[in-house]
Amino acid sequence: MSREKLIYLPLGGAGEVGMNCYVYGYGAEGKERLIVVDLGVTFPDMDGTPGVDLILPDIAWLEERRNQIEAIFITHAHEDHVGAVGHLYERLGAPIYCRAFTANIARGKMAEHGHSDKTVRTVSPWPETTTAGPFTVGFLPISHSIPETSALVIDTPDGRVVHTGDFKLDRTPIVGEAWTPEVWADVAKPGIKALVCDSTNVFSPDPGRSESDIADNLEALISEASGMVVATTFASNVARVKTLAQAGERAGRSICLMGRAMRRMIEASVTTGVLGDFPQVISPEDAAQLPRENVMLLVTGSQGERRAASAQLANGKYMGMKLKEGDLFLFSSKTIPGNERGVIRIINQFSEIGVDVVDDSGGRYHVSGHANRPDLTTMHELMKPQMVIPMHGEHRHLREHAKLAQTNGTQAIVAVNGTMVSLSGNAPQVAGYVETGRTYLDGSVKIGALDGIVRDRLRMAMNGHIVVSVIMDEENEALGEPWVEIKGLPEIGTSNAALVDVLEADIDQFVQSAGTKIRADDDKLDEGIKRVARKTCQDEIGKKAEVTVIISRLE
Amino acid sequence: MSREKLIYLPLGGAGEVGMNCYVYGYGAEGKERLIVVDLGVTFPDMDGTPGVDLILPDIAWLEERRNQIEAIFITHAHEDHVGAVGHLYERLGAPIYCRAFTANIARGKMAEHGHSDKTVRTVSPWPETTTAGPFTVGFLPISHSIPETSALVIDTPDGRVVHTGDFKLDRTPIVGEAWTPEVWADVAKPGIKALVCDSTNVFSPDPGRSESDIADNLEALISEASGMVVATTFASNVARVKTLAQAGERAGRSICLMGRAMRRMIEASVTTGVLGDFPQVISPEDAAQLPRENVMLLVTGSQGERRAASAQLANGKYMGMKLKEGDLFLFSSKTIPGNERGVIRIINQFSEIGVDVVDDSGGRYHVSGHANRPDLTTMHELMKPQMVIPMHGEHRHLREHAKLAQTNGTQAIVAVNGTMVSLSGNAPQVAGYVETGRTYLDGSVKIGALDGIVRDRLRMAMNGHIVVSVIMDEENEALGEPWVEIKGLPEIGTSNAALVDVLEADIDQFVQSAGTKIRADDDKLDEGIKRVARKTCQDEIGKKAEVTVIISRLE
Repeated sequence: MSREKLIYLPLGGAGEVGMNCYVYGYGAEGKERLIVVDLGVTFPDMDGTPGVDLILPDIAWLEERRNQIEAIFITHAHEDHVGAVGHLYERLGAPIYCRAFTANIARGKMAEHGHSDKTVRTVSPWPETTTAGPFTVGFLPISHSIPETSALVIDTPDGRVVHTGDFKLDRTPIVGEAWTPEVWADVAKPGIKALVCDSTNVFSPDPGRSESDIADNLEALISEASGMVVATTFASNVARVKTLAQAGERAGRSICLMGRAMRRMIEASVTTGVLGDFPQVISPEDAAQLPRENVMLLVTGSQGERRAASAQLANGKYMGMKLKEGDLFLFSSKTIPGNERGVIRIINQFSEIGVDVVDDSGGRYHVSGHANRPDLTTMHELMKPQMVIPMHGEHRHLREHAKLAQTNGTQAIVAVNGTMVSLSGNAPQVAGYVETGRTYLDGSVKIGALDGIVRDRLRMAMNGHIVVSVIMDEENEALGEPWVEIKGLPEIGTSNAALVDVLEADIDQFVQSAGTKIRADDDKLDEGIKRVARKTCQDEIGKKAEVTVIISRLE
Repeated sequence: MSREKLIYLPLGGAGEVGMNCYVYGYGAEGKERLIVVDLGVTFPDMDGTPGVDLILPDIAWLEERRNQIEAIFITHAHEDHVGAVGHLYERLGAPIYCRAFTANIARGKMAEHGHSDKTVRTVSPWPETTTAGPFTVGFLPISHSIPETSALVIDTPDGRVVHTGDFKLDRTPIVGEAWTPEVWADVAKPGIKALVCDSTNVFSPDPGRSESDIADNLEALISEASGMVVATTFASNVARVKTLAQAGERAGRSICLMGRAMRRMIEASVTTGVLGDFPQVISPEDAAQLPRENVMLLVTGSQGERRAASAQLANGKYMGMKLKEGDLFLFSSKTIPGNERGVIRIINQFSEIGVDVVDDSGGRYHVSGHANRPDLTTMHELMKPQMVIPMHGEHRHLREHAKLAQTNGTQAIVAVNGTMVSLSGNAPQVAGYVETGRTYLDGSVKIGALDGIVRDRLRMAMNGHIVVSVIMDEENEALGEPWVEIKGLPEIGTSNAALVDVLEADIDQFVQSAGTKIRADDDKLDEGIKRVARKTCQDEIGKKAEVTVIISRLE
């Protein structure tokens, strides 16, 4: 028996939606040759990561095995799959393979970090393949909500693995490749060792709908509008942008793209040839000159992002365009959980202006890009894998997906980030656990999620911050009185005096009456002052403030 | 023609969901006699109000007219209607009227602030009425998701106003009074001047469902469960708690209530006689002794609140109870927008333990407590008011509700918080604008939403905080070097040195090279140090930190 093993190791994307990063390895333990699938990001929020710019997978494990990495494969150009290539490339150093559209986006990101175009290699789709050490990898086209999305067919000495990436089963996807079960059945013929499979929509009970299903609804809505029409969707959903633009054109409107991402994605689509028949677009300047019933804007900001075009239009004005009573704003999108407040804020702002807002609450103007529960079953049955490994989902999605596979008689395992699974045997088996986590891009610096930096920010946000400065002379006597500044705290407390005054008086009294041993010892003095400050703060305003003490000693 | 006018003035609840507070006035301008309807709270969030404990309406306008206030009427015992009585009573001083169940809850809140039971007066429902200056007010029972909810029939010299409060049209509400259109038609007979009407569900297109509709679904679900069953809903939804408990009892389970609010609400219901036939409950200690398939827990925390019973069970243990693989957790509730992350966190934690979670995504285990769009039309048509004034909703709800009324031929106006509307003429007319806002209960202190305190907290959370201490001697020379502390910022920047060291060096250089004029002037020195600190911080870590400077002068 060979001691060489085929392993699967998610470093991001398993146990969460976002930040996808999966590793496959083959070889003897500790000497595996590795490939990486996807290098994505996830986005921060005020609840847990205030001030953070971007969240990246922690790739320390990979970095330590840099010399074992054969290649990086990117399945598609969504931020949660490709967003980290520029930030992490230097630490991995392996060539990046993807199809033309994805490569266009990836190269843009690499350029921002000063990496040459050559770091990203464009490959043709299946049946062409790329050899990477013991792996032979093919990009198998599949429908999703961005062009040229591909599953990966990964041939290994221990058999064929199909890594679905994100997918849906759409035979009429408008832009991009249709779902072709014949081709997939062909791929399955030699037998599939493992199907590593998207779990996002495992809780959606009905079969997924096609992108084409909503074209008529969109056209009817736009045709009936009497004022300006503005629609938002993910810019990367090029099929939707095209459907919207064509519907607008048929309704006699000139199309104007607004927002950097919107223009960037259409440009990439045109450059790489994935987008034909896109209506002529006009500039915002020209749009502003036309009667508003002849204009349709396609804008960024479907998730209520504060700086996107939709939010700026809701706030008043964007690039000279201003909405008014009787205009129509369409969310051709689903609100991602957690973004509800931002989206609702915008809807209410539009309501105040008198703009009618239409969202997807009826399911008429949006379809999902992920396979629903019956579609997953279709995929399982078509591929007949020895085992299903659910990925791309929170724990609840992975667990439900594994149960679905098991109910249908297929072996499955719930493997969250950091779980190394051996695929070599007849059943998936946990081969170990790897320390994983998140890396925060914070300004220009990368920090660890557990460094305590963000924790301190959250504490200041919850509790406010008291700063105390005391000066001690050569004899360890206080020189003058302590000085207190507060930030994020009420100025007046229950004793009806300024909080800083009460704090200064109480700290002064403490320092005066403290023994020499305490006054001579920075740590003890610091600790004592903090204790007094916290108690006074609690008494005065009922809060446990954060306290920073600066002790200056004249020597 | 009389110069006396009937006015309506929302101070909370119109342009938001939460913090309800409506004022009606009658009299000559500036001499109106006033009544207040509801005194509610709204809840803070990390996005906009970190560290805040509770949000109250700003009642400065009312406080200035304290002597004009005849009475306060509370429609029902939800927190967004009664939650502020204890916090604001002292500043208003008028008697509080409500029905027995609401009074029980209100008195508990008053007691927490040291107010006597007598401040709250229990009244009987319509046709009994209470006279308050020029107003005669009756509590007209209506179905909602808490017992003894009432609309108010407000008779005034200018006609009859019906203030619906929160309501749904439920003929079989399980607990509390059914919707009785005959009684309402009777109330409408003399003619209704204005219908001030709940707008929450104006976007829900189908007629609302009855609380009774889900009883069978709940029973089937609980009967089929093989492990322990835990269900959560709003504790105040006494009808739901009863339905759940009865379904559990029929399935052969002993019922255990967990969470302070759950026990408090059931106690109030029993005391005031609104709850009959509630199954015998057992203590957590006894529940822990029973086989798990014989136990059903009813717990608080349907919105994912971190300290509620559901979150604690998801974290591991609560009052000796611990869930495990094969148990069932049911959300018999809707997630309020903005709470999705908290709820999903709990669901994933349960998934990790192996607990099956059922939520309301299929509409089988929850019905709303508010009137849907067709129900609003039913109400409009039954009451045939001269005008509809939408309330209890965000701007988008108020606007849509006004459009609905206008489409059906009734006059309507969108009046958000602070809009004083005259109801005396044939159409609603804006009579002025009043400054309104939010008051934050922050620890033990009340602060204004615009005081800048919370803004400073948000800034520290986003940007981190640099604290600089410099000591200047009698000759305006720096004594020693500046001292820098950072909080919520990375320790090492791009120059690979400690951020505090780089900051100290740059600030030292600035102070040394600054002219005497700057060094002698606190404001100028402070400003200069801030500028240097910000620039260094931007260069080193790419962030615009908050900076606090403490200048100590030896004199």
